[in-house]
Amino acid sequence: MRIIGIDPGYAIVGYGVIDYIGNKFKIVEYGAITTESNQNMNERFKSIHDDLNTIIERTKPEFLAIEELFFNSNQKTAINVAQARGVLLLSALNHGISVHEYTPLQVKQAVVGYGRAEKKQVQLLVKSILGLEKVPKPDDTADALAIAVCHAHSYNPRVQNILNQS
Amino acid sequence: MRIIGIDPGYAIVGYGVIDYIGNKFKIVEYGAITTESNQNMNERFKSIHDDLNTIIERTKPEFLAIEELFFNSNQKTAINVAQARGVLLLSALNHGISVHEYTPLQVKQAVVGYGRAEKKQVQLLVKSILGLEKVPKPDDTADALAIAVCHAHSYNPRVQNILNQS
Repeated sequence: MRIIGIDPGYAIVGYGVIDYIGNKFKIVEYGAITTESNQNMNERFKSIHDDLNTIIERTKPEFLAIEELFFNSNQKTAINVAQARGVLLLSALNHGISVHEYTPLQVKQAVVGYGRAEKKQVQLLVKSILGLEKVPKPDDTADALAIAVCHAHSYNPRVQNILNQS
Repeated sequence: MRIIGIDPGYAIVGYGVIDYIGNKFKIVEYGAITTESNQNMNERFKSIHDDLNTIIERTKPEFLAIEELFFNSNQKTAINVAQARGVLLLSALNHGISVHEYTPLQVKQAVVGYGRAEKKQVQLLVKSILGLEKVPKPDDTADALAIAVCHAHSYNPRVQNILNQS
């Protein structure tokens, strides 16, 4: 199966597209959609949506995995992240892609096998699982790949069990 | 000018389309986009976006006026309203409509000429300004019409002055 993982935002949207076939991972592409702070916020939403459309049309994923939103103290940022997340979800839905949402705890559990793993541990395991030379930058991209790996593992309980035993 | 006012939400999106020509208002149409609570949240976002597209293509507004979001204590609701607002904005932007955002204070000021006006006062003035027989229901629709009237008044400083003097 082909999965696109998304780390939502309005300045940087991390994304990573992976194939998961016969318990093997293969990287398709990864990167970040970025917008400029001097752009009008609504134009940033539109450009995020358009860029994700382009990535989806190029890579044709069957699944989109994205983190559930939890709010922090900065409500203005949170509103804009949520609005950006809405237009990202819409892009997936308009392309008939199956959308799956995971909490940060689920991502850590699925990637590292331990819900309280540190960010650095998650990144190193993602790098190793996907056979990358180094941890992708920015962090948003590494996080997006982690969410995609989470979906691959969550969708295949057998692999999840192997990971938990190692 | 033709204006669509929007009161964003994910269960009910109020909307009202009005013409404002030569200081006269004319109702085009108004109503509410609704989604069912038993629907998947992402499907609700998509259906809201699709329904607004249909309304925009039918009524062809030049301006979209929408309230700025302020968060209350229920963060889960707030996240979903913000995500819905994102897909509503996208619909306007994809149709080349000019988007304008107003605070509740600005809406009251522009409709009633008094920023601390009560909701009921705003609704009665909107009914009177638009020549309606009664206050539209649900409240979301009345609020959407108030935002559209706010845009009409804010876009024409002369009328705003007359209102403030009355």
